[in-house]
Amino acid sequence: MGGDNAPFITVKGAVEAVREYGFDIILVGDRDRINQELSRHSYPKEKIDIIHAGEVIEMEESPAISVRRKKDSSINVAVNLLKSKNADALVSAGNTGAVACSAVLTLGLLEGIERPGIAVMMPTLNDASLLIDVGANIDPKPEHLYQYAIMGTIYLSHILNRTKPKVGLLNIGEEETKGTEFLKETYKLLQSARLNFIGNVEGKDIFTGKSDVIVCDGLIGNVVLKVSESLAETINKLLRRELKNNLITKLGAFLSAPAFSALKKKIDYSEYGGAPLLGISGICIISHGRSSSKAIRNAIRVASEFVSHRINEKIVEALYEK
Amino acid sequence: MGGDNAPFITVKGAVEAVREYGFDIILVGDRDRINQELSRHSYPKEKIDIIHAGEVIEMEESPAISVRRKKDSSINVAVNLLKSKNADALVSAGNTGAVACSAVLTLGLLEGIERPGIAVMMPTLNDASLLIDVGANIDPKPEHLYQYAIMGTIYLSHILNRTKPKVGLLNIGEEETKGTEFLKETYKLLQSARLNFIGNVEGKDIFTGKSDVIVCDGLIGNVVLKVSESLAETINKLLRRELKNNLITKLGAFLSAPAFSALKKKIDYSEYGGAPLLGISGICIISHGRSSSKAIRNAIRVASEFVSHRINEKIVEALYEK
Repeated sequence: MGGDNAPFITVKGAVEAVREYGFDIILVGDRDRINQELSRHSYPKEKIDIIHAGEVIEMEESPAISVRRKKDSSINVAVNLLKSKNADALVSAGNTGAVACSAVLTLGLLEGIERPGIAVMMPTLNDASLLIDVGANIDPKPEHLYQYAIMGTIYLSHILNRTKPKVGLLNIGEEETKGTEFLKETYKLLQSARLNFIGNVEGKDIFTGKSDVIVCDGLIGNVVLKVSESLAETINKLLRRELKNNLITKLGAFLSAPAFSALKKKIDYSEYGGAPLLGISGICIISHGRSSSKAIRNAIRVASEFVSHRINEKIVEALYEK
Repeated sequence: MGGDNAPFITVKGAVEAVREYGFDIILVGDRDRINQELSRHSYPKEKIDIIHAGEVIEMEESPAISVRRKKDSSINVAVNLLKSKNADALVSAGNTGAVACSAVLTLGLLEGIERPGIAVMMPTLNDASLLIDVGANIDPKPEHLYQYAIMGTIYLSHILNRTKPKVGLLNIGEEETKGTEFLKETYKLLQSARLNFIGNVEGKDIFTGKSDVIVCDGLIGNVVLKVSESLAETINKLLRRELKNNLITKLGAFLSAPAFSALKKKIDYSEYGGAPLLGISGICIISHGRSSSKAIRNAIRVASEFVSHRINEKIVEALYEK
């Protein structure tokens, strides 16, 4: 029931995932509306179940309050399916805070993890980097950023096959002595850990792909994510406005349209499918509220890889090896 | 002597400012190199003086150390010209931290200001907003952000003629209850002040121009500034790469080139000329290290407006009115 076009998009994405990958899917939410959406599609019926949930947590609701009050919300019901081992992983395009809150309350955290973190793939000049945390933990301790670095390293190694992912600490300058006391302490901790730590990285390094994993507090991470999305959109809008200015530039825009599409595809988050909520004792992938069905389908694929690669077990092992 | 192409660009910008606005300029730095650059240009000789400075603080040097050690650096010599009232304002494209450090040590702060802040104009969909602080104060108190809000308001009102500039606090969400304790306290302080405070703004609001002044700590501000610059460049590079892919898109790019130029002009920082170092008992405008001569010329114009509009006196008055 989550996301701007639910359940239309979420059901469509789930059907695509069934057709393309053969996954078994449980759709959680308003049974009638889900059935209505499903009736538009053809798919192997035995592959999709519905579990009814009578309430919906809206995007703008307070996570802590709504998760406690709306026991029968689709988010709570879905998280409980993980708890009861009736599902292996959860994908939601709903209220991010509510998913995180419900997951922490119901499933708890992995051994050795003190705070969950939301990790997002940021497109770079030649590939993509993982930014963690983008909003779960706005006032972290150095240990939390160390835990994020470990989780990000494991995630990239196994889901994207990166060997020895480089870890950077987002800071105001490159030198070890830069930043707040919190950042200086975090630097020391990351340096002493079993990580491929390359030191501080700056805002200008995020899109050049200098490091594979970028750790930061959830406030900065959230601002970076939203600034990036909105700047890319703003540049797009301004350029379109300019291109419409006269016939020649309009023709130019028409001829160069394939390049714009290719660029859009390259910086399209939907390719990466969703942001894993790392640190939860369970698997939760959070999709953007504006997800396309392709983004939902890819999020389901990522969730499946998370299961098959036993990412959570590997995170716990890596923390023990410290 | 500051910036990537000094003194070539700085001298060229100064000559342009003399020709266009008739200002009296003092160039501070290596006399021989400056004279060599000046010899390329024709301009009214009585309008440009040179004060020799035997040292240069390089971009990557530690501000606190270099300012104390290199007494005869162009930055220190220039700041001393303000102290001795031999100059009304300083423009530098050099080491930002060193300018801030030298200015604070030599000139001190305005009455009622506890920390200086660097303010940068960020282009938006229809205009531009002022982001403050972008790196002078990475661990501020709520009072500092209040002082930034006042300074930003005065600056925009008088330099850009905005009436009642809207002030926003950069945060992770819009609600009053969002963010760290520091941000919640700052929210209350801004709300109770004589400001057109519109509440929290998010990363996505920066480029839509929701607020005229955006206050934040210098760490987040620095990351936002560098992320924005680098993302705009990355999109540009990726798009150019795609446009070169085949003859049709190449032709398209050729025809639509005027639109790209117009966009570039619109998001070009050089139009705004430089970032004022607000809160100093003196006038310092910091230009980007990669400034063009046009950016230097515009920075000199902004410095002149700062003087003629008595911005610093107005800031002190506004703080008294609290």
